[in-house]
Formats: sequence, structure tokens, C-alpha cells
Amino acid sequence: MKILILGADGYIGWPLSLRLLNMGHYVNGIDNYSRRERVLKVDSNSLIPISDKRWRNKILPIEQGSVRFLNFLADYDCIVHLAEQPSAPYSMRDMGHSLETINQNVMGTMNLLWLIKEYCPNTHLLKLGTLGEFGYPDCPIPEGFIEDGDLKGLPFPKQAGSFYHLSKVFDSCCIEFVNKIWGLRCTDIMQGVVFGSKTSDIDTARKATRFDYDQYFGTVINRFCAQAVCGIPLTIYGTGNQVRGYLPLKDSIECLSLAIHNPPKQGEYRIFNQFAKIISLNELAKRVETIGNELGLNVKTEHIANPRVEIDNPSYNPKQENLKKLGFEPKWALNDEIRELLVELIPYKDRISKKVIQPTVNWR
Amino acid sequence: MKILILGADGYIGWPLSLRLLNMGHYVNGIDNYSRRERVLKVDSNSLIPISDKRWRNKILPIEQGSVRFLNFLADYDCIVHLAEQPSAPYSMRDMGHSLETINQNVMGTMNLLWLIKEYCPNTHLLKLGTLGEFGYPDCPIPEGFIEDGDLKGLPFPKQAGSFYHLSKVFDSCCIEFVNKIWGLRCTDIMQGVVFGSKTSDIDTARKATRFDYDQYFGTVINRFCAQAVCGIPLTIYGTGNQVRGYLPLKDSIECLSLAIHNPPKQGEYRIFNQFAKIISLNELAKRVETIGNELGLNVKTEHIANPRVEIDNPSYNPKQENLKKLGFEPKWALNDEIRELLVELIPYKDRISKKVIQPTVNWR
Repeated sequence: MKILILGADGYIGWPLSLRLLNMGHYVNGIDNYSRRERVLKVDSNSLIPISDKRWRNKILPIEQGSVRFLNFLADYDCIVHLAEQPSAPYSMRDMGHSLETINQNVMGTMNLLWLIKEYCPNTHLLKLGTLGEFGYPDCPIPEGFIEDGDLKGLPFPKQAGSFYHLSKVFDSCCIEFVNKIWGLRCTDIMQGVVFGSKTSDIDTARKATRFDYDQYFGTVINRFCAQAVCGIPLTIYGTGNQVRGYLPLKDSIECLSLAIHNPPKQGEYRIFNQFAKIISLNELAKRVETIGNELGLNVKTEHIANPRVEIDNPSYNPKQENLKKLGFEPKWALNDEIRELLVELIPYKDRISKKVIQPTVNWR
Repeated sequence: MKILILGADGYIGWPLSLRLLNMGHYVNGIDNYSRRERVLKVDSNSLIPISDKRWRNKILPIEQGSVRFLNFLADYDCIVHLAEQPSAPYSMRDMGHSLETINQNVMGTMNLLWLIKEYCPNTHLLKLGTLGEFGYPDCPIPEGFIEDGDLKGLPFPKQAGSFYHLSKVFDSCCIEFVNKIWGLRCTDIMQGVVFGSKTSDIDTARKATRFDYDQYFGTVINRFCAQAVCGIPLTIYGTGNQVRGYLPLKDSIECLSLAIHNPPKQGEYRIFNQFAKIISLNELAKRVETIGNELGLNVKTEHIANPRVEIDNPSYNPKQENLKKLGFEPKWALNDEIRELLVELIPYKDRISKKVIQPTVNWR
């Protein structure tokens, strides 16, 4: 297959590219390297050292540029769109960062959709959204469309929790709309929170993918593990009863690969709820604490006032059928994942800047 | 009251300003005059002549500028946000026009919301959306939130029919979100299609509001009346069975005034379905034809292939309770409205450019 990865230098884009190259596909990448720049600008850096652009370019040709300014597309079998500003707290910093997020994500996606219509209307667009688009309602969350009652067939309501989430909601509405009018073929991924650093394709240190642990770009398990390793308490926002969907990086790559190899029909718009397990923040912290202490670390937890406006909904229940139909079986062994991650991070503990982990952005 | 009208030079903004001034309020306006410019750029002009900026400025101080670039707000009692690109076909012309629409509407609204939070969090934001945000589902459409069943209380699903509609959907999601996190007070108007040119405040020719009839900025009844007056057939897109909510300009001004004088509580987010009557395109065309012929015009209708992707849903049923609770009684006498409009337009028939009425923008 001919595959284009937008955001090929990123946390998920890089290991996905490695996987597809190892499978023998023809892969090109595009990246504006904004993730590298943004993380440096917030005084942090990838905790696991990553290769520079030049080295990565020897493995995968990555053109430097923004999806916002793309003006041509070759005829790929699949375009994977991961080129978005991916952080909720970053989008909530202030007016400028919220507008920056909408500009990159929404305007980028719209530009891309017009280009696909113009240059390659038969290409499969695989787009990364977030499970957070649905919010945390008191009812099961189907894969995109209401399944029964008077509203059967209508899009399931969206309730964004940040400007980042709003940008993803808008992307989804946009993709659904152009699918209707232009007959494009699209997969929209509602992904849970990804964590970890390993995949089977990362077989040398130089191939490592980035690992962020700061308040903006570090997802929660990754942040907890960085805190455990450098000897500061795991900071739990609020009650810790927030229940979310999570998946290790391995599973994320597996799911995206399944979606690429099983494309939707022309004119089909399908939504995948992509996660491995639903778990609470407190349970996650407890696991990191226990395993960290087994490894000889001195791990403590602390609750801090929640800087976000979030809902605790213990009955949170997103459904997952579409990926299972394609053969997805979560390789969920959370304790093993956490142990593997902690062991990997320990040698880098002196690289951790403790002050970038604590949240300073308040939703209110 | 101290009221700021964003888009004060527009079709609705101008007569709303006149109404509020006549009621004795302190009113300021802001406008970037993009409507005047855009209509000229598509080779059309307001069919009813309107006063220039300088004359209007003697009645109402209108600052020239875009909501996108506002960086300060005084403490108004109410800010009415009408400063958006209002045309669905304009947004569907090509990539540039879709991005222009999203940029003006979405980025403008977000900028405004941050400014309200910063400078005047107690101000009532009255924002114009469109009834089209809900699409045309086979079930009654509540005023924003699902009223029963498992999904009770969740936002009613949105299904935009153009990039313009998408921009309005996004505005609404954004306003709902900031209402939750920042406790702003907001009224979000889901308005039907407005037509006509008269209000009781337009008592001299110089006070006239603009009247567009071109394919982009002319709403359907206005376009039909222009066609009737200049002797070309009324063009019905597709079957003509499309059922929509309509209201005369008089009612629109009445409703907006009611909302301004009955603000929501601090932290309240309310949605009004604002229309006077549900009616089909064929029925509208028949009325214009009948009344036009009574007035001695020679009116015919013709069906053309629908350039839009639209749903015919004869059971279309948006609910309307919130405005009625505030005392709104539609002054719906459609035949009288059409007669009044035709009589007003006849003296201007030689100003009509017939070629700007026919649709050239195709949704597909």
C-alpha cells in the first residue's frame, strides 16, 4: 500500500510509520515538527532521547510542512491524519493557545478534506479523534450513532471538555458532513488515553519514540511513571474517581494498523471507539505506586485541587465493537506495561525537570 | 441598557439597532462591512438602496473592525453577536470560501468569548445561530437538549448541511462549553430563514436595511420576490418539498428584543428555536406566484436540479417554547408579508441583475 502519515514525527506517528515500513508498505511522512518545538517552549523535553530529524529521514522521508498549507496530494491508498495539537491543557492556557489549537486542527483538517476531494477522492482517510469528544454521559456510548429510540441513527451527542476537545468534535462533524456530500471514505478514531513507549518495531534506542511527561504533553500514566522514577508524589487531580478509557502505545499502533488494512467502503464513514480498558485515576495511581515500590522506588501519591472541570462518572461505558470485528484483542496487562515503562525510565531519571509536571493551567 | 451590536451594519443588525435606539437604549455598533463588500464582489448589490456608512454613523456609532481582531470590551449589559458570514452557498463555493467562513465565524466567536471572560463576565451574550444546526431529523427537535429517554439532558445531535452550518454548530458547542467552565450567561438563537425588509422602525427610505436577492446572500422568499418582480421564473431547487422554518424580519427583531430584555441568569445557557412558521418551498412559491399575479406581475415557477444536498422531511418539527414563554406571538400573515414586499420591490425592478440569482455553487 501507499500510505501518507501526517504527523509522522510524533508520539504515535513515528512508531506507526515504523510498523508500516516493516510490513513492506511504501510510506511517506509530513510533519511541521511543532511537537518538538512546543515541548521545548514549555521547558520540557522528551524523557527518552529521540533521534534528530536527519536520522529519521534516512528511515522515512518526512517532508517538513504544515497540513494547513498543503496544496497538493498524491494518490495514496491511505492518509493517516495525526498532525494536530494534541493537548487539552495546552489549548486551555489562554486565548492565544486556544486559537492556535483551533487553527491548526480545524483549519488543517478542512484543508485536507478539500485536497482529498480534489486529488484523491478514493483515498481512505484515517483520522485521530478522541474518546473525550463524547464527554462523560450517564449512558453507554455507542460508536458514533444513537442505536435505538426516536433518535436512532442520529450522531451521538458530543460534549467537549476543552478547546482541544472542541477542535476534535469539529473535525468529526466536518468529516461526517463531507462524507455525506462528497462520498469520501473515512475512519474516525475515538481514542482513549495512550501511554507507554514500546512497540515491537522499536528495536534499537535510535528508533525510540518521544516520551513526554510535562503537564501539557504528558498523558497521565506517563506522568505518574515519571513522578515515580524521580521521587515526587504522583499528583492526582481532584477526587481521582475520574474513569477514562486507556490503551498502551502497542495497542494503539495495532488498532491503527487494523484500520489501515481493513479500509471502509467508498462513501462509508465509520467510527471506532479505540481503547483497551476503562479504569479510574485512583486505581492507576495505586498500580504505579505498588509496582514502583516493588522496584525499590519510594512512591507516594497526593491529591491536588482539580485544575480541570471534569465529571466523575463511575458508570462511564463506551462500547467497542468495530475494532473487535476486525480482530482487535487488547494486549492489556497493565501491571506489565507499568513495570516495563518504569524500568525503561529509571536510567533517565536525572533528565526529569520536576517543575514542568505540576499543573499550572486552570480551566476556570 | 448598554448594548453592543456586532454586525450592526447588516440585514438584521441595522434594524435591531434602530429598534433599540428607539427604545431609548445606549447602543454601539461594530462592523467590518464584509457583507457590503462580499455582495459587490459577487456582482450584486442591495436591491433596496441603503444609506452609506457615514450617514448611518450619525444615527449609531459603528466602529469599523472585525470581531476576529477585537482586543477589548467595555462592560455592556448585552452583546449581540451577528457578525458572521451568513451564507451557506458562499461557504460551499470552494476551499477558500469555506476556510474564510470558519475563520470569521469560529475564530471570531472564540475571540469574543475570551474577551467576555476577561472584561465583562456578567454581560449577556446573545448569539445568532441557525435552526439548520439540527439538520432535518425524523423526530421533533427540542430547544437544544434531549427531553426524555436514556439521553435526557444531553445536547440534541447536530447535523450541519454546509460549512456555514458547521461554523454555527461549532459556535454553539463553544458557547455551551465556556458557559460550563466560566459561568457566562448566554442565549443561543436557532433562527429560521428570515425574509422581508420592513420593521416599524424603518420609517424613512434612508433608514432602509439591505435587501439581497443573489444566489449567495438572498434568502429564498426574498429571491422569489425579486424573480417575480423582474419577470423570471421562481427557481425551486429540487422537488420543492423541503420544509423549513421561516420568519419575517419584523418577528426576528421582535424576538431578539425579547431576548435582550429578558436576559438569562448568570451561568445560564439557553437555546431558543426562533421561527414563525414551518412551510414547504412549493407552498412558498405558490403564494408568491398567486399574489404576484394579483398585482399584475406575470409569475411562473420552475424546478431546477437541486445544487444542495438536502433532505425532504415533511414531518420536520422543531419545538418552540422558550420565546413563547417570553410573550412572543408570531405576526405571521405570509400573504400580507409577500404582498408588502412585492409592492416595495416593484419600483426597483430595473436594479435587478437577473444573472446573479441562478445558483452556480454545487454542494457535490
